[in-house]
Amino acid sequence: MAKETPKKPVVGLDMGGTKILAGVVDETGKILGVAKRPTKAHAGPDEIIERMAKTVLEAVDRSGLKIGDIQAVGVGTPGPLDPDEGIIWHTPNLPGWVNVPLAASLQERLDVPIFIDNDVNMGTLGELALGAAKGTRDAVGIFVGTGIGGGLILDGELRQGFRKNAAEVGHMVILADGPYCGCGKRGCAESVASRTAIERDIRAGLRAGRKSMMAEVLKGEPNERITSGALAQAYRAGDPLVTEVVGRAQYYLGLLVSAIVNLVDLEVVVFGGGVVEALGDDFLAPIRPIAYQYCLNQEGIESVKIVPASLGDNAALLGASVYARRRLAKK
Amino acid sequence: MAKETPKKPVVGLDMGGTKILAGVVDETGKILGVAKRPTKAHAGPDEIIERMAKTVLEAVDRSGLKIGDIQAVGVGTPGPLDPDEGIIWHTPNLPGWVNVPLAASLQERLDVPIFIDNDVNMGTLGELALGAAKGTRDAVGIFVGTGIGGGLILDGELRQGFRKNAAEVGHMVILADGPYCGCGKRGCAESVASRTAIERDIRAGLRAGRKSMMAEVLKGEPNERITSGALAQAYRAGDPLVTEVVGRAQYYLGLLVSAIVNLVDLEVVVFGGGVVEALGDDFLAPIRPIAYQYCLNQEGIESVKIVPASLGDNAALLGASVYARRRLAKK
Repeated sequence: MAKETPKKPVVGLDMGGTKILAGVVDETGKILGVAKRPTKAHAGPDEIIERMAKTVLEAVDRSGLKIGDIQAVGVGTPGPLDPDEGIIWHTPNLPGWVNVPLAASLQERLDVPIFIDNDVNMGTLGELALGAAKGTRDAVGIFVGTGIGGGLILDGELRQGFRKNAAEVGHMVILADGPYCGCGKRGCAESVASRTAIERDIRAGLRAGRKSMMAEVLKGEPNERITSGALAQAYRAGDPLVTEVVGRAQYYLGLLVSAIVNLVDLEVVVFGGGVVEALGDDFLAPIRPIAYQYCLNQEGIESVKIVPASLGDNAALLGASVYARRRLAKK
Repeated sequence: MAKETPKKPVVGLDMGGTKILAGVVDETGKILGVAKRPTKAHAGPDEIIERMAKTVLEAVDRSGLKIGDIQAVGVGTPGPLDPDEGIIWHTPNLPGWVNVPLAASLQERLDVPIFIDNDVNMGTLGELALGAAKGTRDAVGIFVGTGIGGGLILDGELRQGFRKNAAEVGHMVILADGPYCGCGKRGCAESVASRTAIERDIRAGLRAGRKSMMAEVLKGEPNERITSGALAQAYRAGDPLVTEVVGRAQYYLGLLVSAIVNLVDLEVVVFGGGVVEALGDDFLAPIRPIAYQYCLNQEGIESVKIVPASLGDNAALLGASVYARRRLAKK
């Protein structure tokens, strides 16, 4: 039976490919103390789990609390994973993580209930409970970066799915027979609208002789990544090539939003990730009219909010803390 | 609070553009008696609602029951509509239906609780509760005909959506910048995979000089529709043009399934509608490998069932009866 939502502090932990971020969070969503350390992805699961435990204890210490004061730890990690069993099946960006019982291993070290789910789900839940989608029950998070990740919340609950693999919004096909995607298929949203796709198309434009500010950025460094910051600068300056390429990505993201809304008809679409953080609403403004236009039923369509994420780097941490409270209440 | 599921018979009513079909259904899903009459779409809401009431009473009479023995009537109708208020907002195929309080009007005539929802939702619910998806909790129904309609059930419940407009699977964009769709947008699944799209492409092939059995079917009757039956015959006979055009539609339907599974990760995809009924599993066999291939996570992918609808003409009627029982239990 559901008990009352736990009132004592919990820890939200965001385990990424480059850093581990932990925060003690009270029942209002206030962060009482944080700690951070590099992940050292090459170190393998055992050492990384040890580092995670240390980061948790450090955050607890900085909050002036003891681990005994903490009711649970919620962890957002890369996946795919099994949130019920607390097992990470594998993670493309962390070598050696195959069927790792993360929840059990952390619980052994910390003696506190541990609940895990994927980081993008956590980010979406954070935005729903405490950020850009606060006060709503249905939201999709679309995180545009190297790839396009997603999280889906329906009727207030994370949609896990039959195979615990929902919300792969980046791999919904938008342009059949389009460019090859990192996943090996063609025409996925990620293949036409991620920062990787934008970068590919800018490089192609430059090779074809198009003039652009980006030529300076990339000069002499053909393998350098185009950062979200550099992209934002050129977009804001009205660079024609960048405007055109980013414009195509925005068009495809509009179609993606409409496909999602046509299927599950939800209230809020939250966009996050590097490109969105760098450009904010400037990036979303051209997406809205396309997204709305491509929804079948136009009644009330502008009440569907399309907004930038508002929690920044703390989204997954805060979402993980909300998740921990919810799982605890359901136990 | 939810009460026990009602045990007395209910009536399921399927109100289509051409016929009204009513059936008395017991708590096991057995049809005790049916009645049918033409809709007479031009007659307008008042007369059609009167005809619906008569059809219900006739089905009750044929079951050897009285209307007092009936606990509720569930109605599947074209939409969009508001299932909570029982109001049809408008229906593209029925002239004069604008903001019609269908539930209240029928209740006045029959003195029994009336619950309405759209016919494709009802068909999907019928297949989930009593047909091809029996025993599962998550299903999408994809009905391929003149257009492509859909119904979505998650965690055992119809997904209505924020604007009560979910499951418009036919208008998810699959081929950006593709052919114009009946809805005025481009590249929707309906624009590349409905029977209308198949017909358009076969006619284009014939005009371009391609040889095909379909030339005979259409000879001298340029405005005649290609029926699902004629299509099935030519497909089974291996007609090259028909095989090619239907093959493209199957490819796009495979992409559509993968987009849906990537987003909501469900257990069963039920295909219905004229083309599917005429061709059965022959039509679905080429869809499966495409659908599976385009799902991001391949683990357990073949446990996602892609099956033909099994209730035929009774799907919406049976679904409406299940819906009526559920709504009653929630009152």
